[in-house]
Amino acid sequence: MVEVGLADVRDAAERIRGVAHRTPVITSRTLDAAVGAEVFLKCENLQRVGAFKFRGAYNAVSRLSPEQLARGIAAFSSGNHAQAVALAARELGSSAVIVMPADTPASKLDAVRGYGAEVVFYDRYTEDREALGRKLAADRGLALIPPYEHADVIAGQGTAALELFEEVPDLDVLVVPVGGGGLMAGSATVAKGLDDRVRVVGVEPEAGDDTKRSLVADERVNIPVPRTIADGQAANIPGEITFSINRRLVDEVVLVSDDELRDALRFAFDRLKSVLEPSGASGLAALLSKRVPSVEGARVGVILSGGNVGWKRFGELLG
Amino acid sequence: MVEVGLADVRDAAERIRGVAHRTPVITSRTLDAAVGAEVFLKCENLQRVGAFKFRGAYNAVSRLSPEQLARGIAAFSSGNHAQAVALAARELGSSAVIVMPADTPASKLDAVRGYGAEVVFYDRYTEDREALGRKLAADRGLALIPPYEHADVIAGQGTAALELFEEVPDLDVLVVPVGGGGLMAGSATVAKGLDDRVRVVGVEPEAGDDTKRSLVADERVNIPVPRTIADGQAANIPGEITFSINRRLVDEVVLVSDDELRDALRFAFDRLKSVLEPSGASGLAALLSKRVPSVEGARVGVILSGGNVGWKRFGELLG
Repeated sequence: MVEVGLADVRDAAERIRGVAHRTPVITSRTLDAAVGAEVFLKCENLQRVGAFKFRGAYNAVSRLSPEQLARGIAAFSSGNHAQAVALAARELGSSAVIVMPADTPASKLDAVRGYGAEVVFYDRYTEDREALGRKLAADRGLALIPPYEHADVIAGQGTAALELFEEVPDLDVLVVPVGGGGLMAGSATVAKGLDDRVRVVGVEPEAGDDTKRSLVADERVNIPVPRTIADGQAANIPGEITFSINRRLVDEVVLVSDDELRDALRFAFDRLKSVLEPSGASGLAALLSKRVPSVEGARVGVILSGGNVGWKRFGELLG
Repeated sequence: MVEVGLADVRDAAERIRGVAHRTPVITSRTLDAAVGAEVFLKCENLQRVGAFKFRGAYNAVSRLSPEQLARGIAAFSSGNHAQAVALAARELGSSAVIVMPADTPASKLDAVRGYGAEVVFYDRYTEDREALGRKLAADRGLALIPPYEHADVIAGQGTAALELFEEVPDLDVLVVPVGGGGLMAGSATVAKGLDDRVRVVGVEPEAGDDTKRSLVADERVNIPVPRTIADGQAANIPGEITFSINRRLVDEVVLVSDDELRDALRFAFDRLKSVLEPSGASGLAALLSKRVPSVEGARVGVILSGGNVGWKRFGELLG
């Protein structure tokens, strides 16, 4: 059993200090009035690479041996984890090979290559990226950094919640997006480790409710590949490690529809002047659409987990 | 002669404490690399009402007598000052009447009315809004709060720069958007008051270069009404009070084109995950387009002055 504790998150916070951004916490009286609560938004869309993923990737890469850093790192991801590993490798004087779909948008390829990483393509319709990533890592002697199934990655992701509690110590509720469950596991470890009475709420897109179903079944449930605009939360089964933590620490998981995500993107743009990607807005969406029960009068922390969406795609999403 | 000093800004900072947001200062390594400097961005787009204007309006309204607050406040503005005065009046238990153009977009009307203010329309092609505002104030016994020609407004606007220097004490350069000159005058008062060696640079849109021309001529120059996407900077002559301060304290004013403003809006969206209106992006635009000389290796503060632009208009601006 892989264990992650508050001390591991505190250690991760020391490792990322001065490298990751300490992102701001913002508030909005308009939001507070709409929700009927005091809401504190942790802006991980302002993190390096535009998402919380840099925290976990950097923490994991920084724990590799000098020999391993010299050999290099591998990852498979079409999303923010790819950029996070590429940048973490560069920051630590290593090199990275990222396995990405052949149809990855040019902007994402440019970002990963801009951090100096090599990209290896796979066909997302015929090839298994995880198997490919593992083979590549084995063949070349690279350390594979998975997006969430890794204690150091989970501990790193937890540092966002740790900073939020340092700034706003007396939160009653913490609302966190759930994809593979790494951010959720790290955040729940922090919240419950600091104060067992904090209510920890995960948010999934309606189509990607694998963690919610798994909590109900009390075992990992595999669902069809979700169709949702929240591409960062399109997991079809929780991770083994992340679920073992989340089943113990998460009080409940609520769901949001794609339309509720769109409303939250619009609210964030118009009222918070903040660019969020759909996954990054799911906590905000859950609050705005009253999906989180019993928050009236509470102090509620929300992790806005990422903002990687181009303005053209953003316009298409909002119609 | 109206004087504004650092002590006035410090007093204003006390008055707005806990009412205005202390907005975050953000950094971006991508931006630093593009500019060749260390850049610190003061996010007044995250201020209440979405722009720095709330600082000055609140400071000015808070200095009115109880009798005056009971009678009420007047302002004329089609922009962020309207919302700022409306909200400041509400916060201080007063009432506001705002003179606005008959063709004001519904979203801006809704915002002003949402803060409980009365709106009086005028025809921008046939009527003089300032004369109308003054007559209305005189007829009803209201205190007129002008958008920049007022010592308390200028001192209030200076609090954004004061907070920036508190957070980043050793800035070499401060870059500030110039419209009527209130933000510029308050910011310059702070920068030069704290350290005479700080270089203070104003930014105007190319079409709205009244302050730059006025500094060259060493007297207030009246230009044709500017056509620019930076509607918050479409002044055609500097204020008397603001120019008397800025001629003394501002080292130089640089210009940005509308296309450079568009590039900055896009950069802010894609890389800073921040929504800016064109005027609010002018300092960023000046840096990105290398309009500010001699910043290599310097520590540069920039005030991102506002973010009030709907996402549809934003998409139109970027084409």
